[in-house]
Amino acid sequence: MTRTPQHLLEFSVDALQEVRRSAPLVHCITNSVVVNVTANALLALGASAAMVDIPDEAGPFAAIASGLLVNLGTPTAEQRTAMREAVASATDAGTPWVLDPVAVGALPVRTPLGFELRDAGPTIIRGNASEIIAVGGAGAGGRGVDADDDLAAAEPHARALALRTGGIVAVSGPVDLVTDGRESVRISNGTPLLTQVTGGGCALGAVMAAFAAVDDDRLATTVAAITVYTVAAQRAAARASGPGSFAVGFLDALAEIDGDALRRTAVLATDAATDATDATS
Amino acid sequence: MTRTPQHLLEFSVDALQEVRRSAPLVHCITNSVVVNVTANALLALGASAAMVDIPDEAGPFAAIASGLLVNLGTPTAEQRTAMREAVASATDAGTPWVLDPVAVGALPVRTPLGFELRDAGPTIIRGNASEIIAVGGAGAGGRGVDADDDLAAAEPHARALALRTGGIVAVSGPVDLVTDGRESVRISNGTPLLTQVTGGGCALGAVMAAFAAVDDDRLATTVAAITVYTVAAQRAAARASGPGSFAVGFLDALAEIDGDALRRTAVLATDAATDATDATS
Amino acid sequence: MTRTPQHLLEFSVDALQEVRRSAPLVHCITNSVVVNVTANALLALGASAAMVDIPDEAGPFAAIASGLLVNLGTPTAEQRTAMREAVASATDAGTPWVLDPVAVGALPVRTPLGFELRDAGPTIIRGNASEIIAVGGAGAGGRGVDADDDLAAAEPHARALALRTGGIVAVSGPVDLVTDGRESVRISNGTPLLTQVTGGGCALGAVMAAFAAVDDDRLATTVAAITVYTVAAQRAAARASGPGSFAVGFLDALAEIDGDALRRTAVLATDAATDATDATS
Repeated sequence: MTRTPQHLLEFSVDALQEVRRSAPLVHCITNSVVVNVTANALLALGASAAMVDIPDEAGPFAAIASGLLVNLGTPTAEQRTAMREAVASATDAGTPWVLDPVAVGALPVRTPLGFELRDAGPTIIRGNASEIIAVGGAGAGGRGVDADDDLAAAEPHARALALRTGGIVAVSGPVDLVTDGRESVRISNGTPLLTQVTGGGCALGAVMAAFAAVDDDRLATTVAAITVYTVAAQRAAARASGPGSFAVGFLDALAEIDGDALRRTAVLATDAATDATDATS
Repeated sequence: MTRTPQHLLEFSVDALQEVRRSAPLVHCITNSVVVNVTANALLALGASAAMVDIPDEAGPFAAIASGLLVNLGTPTAEQRTAMREAVASATDAGTPWVLDPVAVGALPVRTPLGFELRDAGPTIIRGNASEIIAVGGAGAGGRGVDADDDLAAAEPHARALALRTGGIVAVSGPVDLVTDGRESVRISNGTPLLTQVTGGGCALGAVMAAFAAVDDDRLATTVAAITVYTVAAQRAAARASGPGSFAVGFLDALAEIDGDALRRTAVLATDAATDATDATS
Repeated sequence: MTRTPQHLLEFSVDALQEVRRSAPLVHCITNSVVVNVTANALLALGASAAMVDIPDEAGPFAAIASGLLVNLGTPTAEQRTAMREAVASATDAGTPWVLDPVAVGALPVRTPLGFELRDAGPTIIRGNASEIIAVGGAGAGGRGVDADDDLAAAEPHARALALRTGGIVAVSGPVDLVTDGRESVRISNGTPLLTQVTGGGCALGAVMAAFAAVDDDRLATTVAAITVYTVAAQRAAARASGPGSFAVGFLDALAEIDGDALRRTAVLATDAATDATDATS
């Protein structure tokens, strides 16, 4: 099935309502820098959040959570054990889970862990262009959290990675790309301010887990998560005086965004990726 | 002694002044999600904050701190050791301490730890209804941080728990309850926005420790902490556009709240809980 | 060479532009309380931030980072190993690094670690008066993060410490002092609100590392970092309603501050510290 932008937009409107109605509980194992803003973004949107990141608790909790985020930003030894537990448990329970391979390819502890978790079959992988290239097994991964590579370079890797994992891959940047390896969707919303406060990308991974909890169409829920998130950011940017007031207004915007705002502002484009397998060479 | 609401309100006004005058140093061992907002809430109020949560430091520090918070939100192995050290040291030194049993009853590592710390005799236990029921030994504890049970269900457990520990138990919710097992006080201030940003409950535990440091009347200082905190939240909510601006305005409100604001806005009710022991069956 | 205040001010204006142009990547190993605001301060200023604080990654990363911050606020066992790795690697690679000896002298795990790191030759040591006195080997260090000692008491210790390490020492307070042991510079900007939100001092250490990355004149870059930071704070304070709105406006002010604002507001004073060695007795 190839979706139209209009279909994806209406799906996003419905998915936002469903997130608010059902308040999916998102289990987050994430880094110390963004853990607060990640929880607040989920709460502002109407979801629930729980940061359960110690061994022997992460496993049981992933089985009862509505969705799981595994973010490799500051992976302590306890978190690495908790991540493996949670992923195994989410897989058994059918809990959708998002892998955010922060700085994979650039740092030696998280890189093999990122490959291991990639091979465990994440429902969604979200990263910037450099990270997506690196987690696919190519590229040096840039300098940590920088996005040195652009979307054009990353797209074939994203599609190949999606075919390999059987899941969705999302590349964050000025234009966001979502692909299952066959179809691709571009979302052209957002604001540079999202890169001028920490957590702009990391919290999006948690929001993807919340949306994945409300519908099995993972391509569409991932598009919905990005659309809601970046349209809210764009609205907050229009009222901000700088990164501080943007961060505050962004939480307000996530709480107030509705279908009308999405319909007025969202810019979606679709294309069938017929040459997806070209990238696997 | 049974206090009147008027007595408790005037006590709260005086206690707030005393917190500002003496700037009690609150030792916090708390979770990664709320550690920043907890420190900021204490500082905004005029108290001091220090997050000393590693073994071999938490013990000595609890002995010189004015009050201690032990919050089980993200209990790493080092924090668990630090908590035990700090509680032993606070007990020896007579430092008042608050136990916040986040998600006790729902998760397997913290639940026995919560019971152990409960039995160490906390000055105050603060939680939502589900957590108070669970830490008393009944109930499954809800889904993590959710408050699935209501105050009516929790009240007899709260009173029984207070009689058991010899301390104060506070149940957070739309109406807050404070009890020593014999007397109970209800505070009907606050705003739903406190549940739409992370740390709304957790930071309150730290504020309770600050107030406990300025007077030995633990029931009254706990009521004072909740009254100051929820009246400030209510005032911030009146000026907020959403959860982001609420969180910012709440810190401003904690810094500016005074006796006049408390007298205008606080809603306190008292009752003698003559049937406290009924709940122990 | 003895600089004039005018020279240092124009240096600060140029250094700010250079930070924005080159976006130095600051490697931060810092405490859980301030990690978010530290990253956001760096990003607001135009620098890059990466919090790499686990063993086996901190070493390699310090070699490629533009600057390094080692802050002892909540030093877990993994962080302590990561700090040692990062400092060894920064030293080998010539990466400038800042030591922030939070509560050294007051707590038993971090105090010997602070001495060890001091002896590893930090490019810059930043602390409040009590911490600088303590890290120099004198004084009990106050009650954790409090600044019980004043600048007059700390100045001879600061100069002696700078001569001992061969680096720069900065004492934070109502007036900031920067010294290399021979020359001293005072910056009289800022606002008491910087002490009413957590991270006011800790994030400054990271900003010092960013400025140290753009020029080898360490005395001047440290003065520039403090001048930019405290002038931005002063401007934010003028618009704030309390600590919450100050913290938000401070990030906005860091993003918008420019040479004109620095020239209008900065208050610098210099003096040659001819009696620096007097303090080593």
